[in-house]
Amino acid sequence: MTPSPKGFRFSVTKAGFRKADRPDLALVVSDVPAVAAGFFTTNLFPAAPVLVGRELLAASDTARGVLINSGQANACTGELGMMNCRKTLELVALHTDFRPDQILPASTGVIGAQLHMDKWEKAVQGLVSGLGTASVKDFAMAIMTTDAFPKFSGLTVRLSGGEVTLAGVAKGAGMICPDMATMLSVLTCDARVEADAWKEMVGTAVKLSFNRATVDGDTSTNDTLYALANGASGVGIADAKDREILQKAITEVLVRLAYLLVRDGEGATKVIFVHVSGAASVDDAEKMARTIGHSPLVKTAMYGKDANWGRIVAAAGRAGVSFNPMELRVKMAGVELFTRGEPTDLDFDTLLKEPLEETDIHLDIEIGTGPGEYTLMASDFGHGYIDINADYRT
Amino acid sequence: MTPSPKGFRFSVTKAGFRKADRPDLALVVSDVPAVAAGFFTTNLFPAAPVLVGRELLAASDTARGVLINSGQANACTGELGMMNCRKTLELVALHTDFRPDQILPASTGVIGAQLHMDKWEKAVQGLVSGLGTASVKDFAMAIMTTDAFPKFSGLTVRLSGGEVTLAGVAKGAGMICPDMATMLSVLTCDARVEADAWKEMVGTAVKLSFNRATVDGDTSTNDTLYALANGASGVGIADAKDREILQKAITEVLVRLAYLLVRDGEGATKVIFVHVSGAASVDDAEKMARTIGHSPLVKTAMYGKDANWGRIVAAAGRAGVSFNPMELRVKMAGVELFTRGEPTDLDFDTLLKEPLEETDIHLDIEIGTGPGEYTLMASDFGHGYIDINADYRT
Repeated sequence: MTPSPKGFRFSVTKAGFRKADRPDLALVVSDVPAVAAGFFTTNLFPAAPVLVGRELLAASDTARGVLINSGQANACTGELGMMNCRKTLELVALHTDFRPDQILPASTGVIGAQLHMDKWEKAVQGLVSGLGTASVKDFAMAIMTTDAFPKFSGLTVRLSGGEVTLAGVAKGAGMICPDMATMLSVLTCDARVEADAWKEMVGTAVKLSFNRATVDGDTSTNDTLYALANGASGVGIADAKDREILQKAITEVLVRLAYLLVRDGEGATKVIFVHVSGAASVDDAEKMARTIGHSPLVKTAMYGKDANWGRIVAAAGRAGVSFNPMELRVKMAGVELFTRGEPTDLDFDTLLKEPLEETDIHLDIEIGTGPGEYTLMASDFGHGYIDINADYRT
Repeated sequence: MTPSPKGFRFSVTKAGFRKADRPDLALVVSDVPAVAAGFFTTNLFPAAPVLVGRELLAASDTARGVLINSGQANACTGELGMMNCRKTLELVALHTDFRPDQILPASTGVIGAQLHMDKWEKAVQGLVSGLGTASVKDFAMAIMTTDAFPKFSGLTVRLSGGEVTLAGVAKGAGMICPDMATMLSVLTCDARVEADAWKEMVGTAVKLSFNRATVDGDTSTNDTLYALANGASGVGIADAKDREILQKAITEVLVRLAYLLVRDGEGATKVIFVHVSGAASVDDAEKMARTIGHSPLVKTAMYGKDANWGRIVAAAGRAGVSFNPMELRVKMAGVELFTRGEPTDLDFDTLLKEPLEETDIHLDIEIGTGPGEYTLMASDFGHGYIDINADYRT
């Protein structure tokens, strides 16, 4: 059972936005105003809830809750989309003791269609009255679209003043790529934290988690992470040590969620850890990791359990990163495949037969002796991706 | 029947490099030294024949022929690979009246294994004695690897002094991407041209053809285009008008070959013409065209015959190109799907039902009123790509 931070109540309901008969509307509310951080898509076509969420967080450091629907993305919906988004927040406020601008909105689903406001009007009262009846897992399930499984993770850590708990949920399987929280995610935490420190800590964790995950290189229009800390544990950050512990906990929860996201990459069967080291800079290491992690040839080879080092070397060679080809070393699951410009003479088909059956595959790419290092989590590419995406909309 | 330029003789043979019982070694020879241009991969791991070919063309403006094997790429094969490549040229020279350094080498196939020199030694004499017995199409067939069909194109044009003929062949289906001739291709021509003019004209045509074609964004280690003009027609370039005609003919042949390449993208069913206009610069237009043409979500939507404008808009928004989202217009097969930040209210599922059954799909993306324009030919992404690449090597 995932631990639940104090002072947060969850609710989900079936509003009927999705064809499938399952919950598709979710709300989490903090008993008191919580310090709030938001991270959004860098796409030039942000969805209406992204625009509204940004606006609300620019005006206030705190929020009372997060409202998420699946089935309809409310993206590319113009002025009406913005009005509808605000209206959904008003509907929730109508049944609660807080203001519409204290709720942060997010939507996920098909791009372009306007929200079905009639369904919202029918669903909201039950959603609010159900607060406290749903679990973190229920919340994670209600925000799924093409996800094969719900994604949630919790952690309790001890600071000097006592225990604090974090719980995170995320959704996302396709249109997943670098740069910003590339999906929807909500992190709740009952620690007592200053707004600036909270934003900084969550920002650090985002860089080390979601921004290092990729399925298909496509950054969505709706990507949002909201992180709320409400102080309900009564435990604050007393010193640098406390802050370090909390930072590690936030990072750990978000890394777990990012891992689940890649693990559930549409049709994915593998999580490929592309670790690049010895680069002149972190930027170079990242560029190379992304070139390898996005290569359809590398991704299909991993799907096919094929120790095809040639495709990794070819991808490294076209990454646009300057390095001495003679210094390139490629390891797969710890087995050295390539060094000094040539394949090694190990019988790697035999050596790698079992390791390539595993879900997690580690690729280590050393390109020199520089300090730059980066790890990207990438999914493989198989028939499932084609099946899901060749007829998602229709 | 594809026309064949005067003074070139073709030969193919079964050397046994490939499992399948079919020709895998090809030679084309010009009766007299031909002016020669070469364009090679930008990958940091160029194959041995790329290194040797570059070296030969740096030392001489002319060549007598081109030698290509399929089945083995001779890439990542170190010093022995270089020696073997030179040895293959010597073997050919042994049976002809020209020197090894007058033959340009190219290889395609699996990366990493050393050439089977015993098979070369047995095959070369027959290859040379067969010169004149093969057609342009036979040549195109012998250099295929995962190609589903041979790629060749010919053209006869009239200059002021008389007719000249061009014939081009190409191979490639996967590991196809921008930047340099991303496959193997040979262009033969019987016009009489100065070396510098020839190189310039072929370079211009490469930019407008192969460099605008993509299957999977993976640039190979072996990409090579050789272009030979031997003057055997007796017809030269008398004036600017002649040059313009010949330039257009070269470009047309290479564009046809590039189209065939994309058409035969591994598992591809479509050729997507991504046309971006109104950009601030050509570079911006190209960047956006490549982002859209490489998007797995756009590629799978086209495979699924789905008028999914949302994925095109999302890809445009993450291309890293600055533009006003309100000015974006998206057309598919001439039907306007998106304008002023919202989808149009056309019933495009009905309007596009038939057009999306076609092989060629035209996407027009207008992002403003600037002069920058670019067209990329991209393949779609379907089950065939996964089938072919999940077990190509094994």
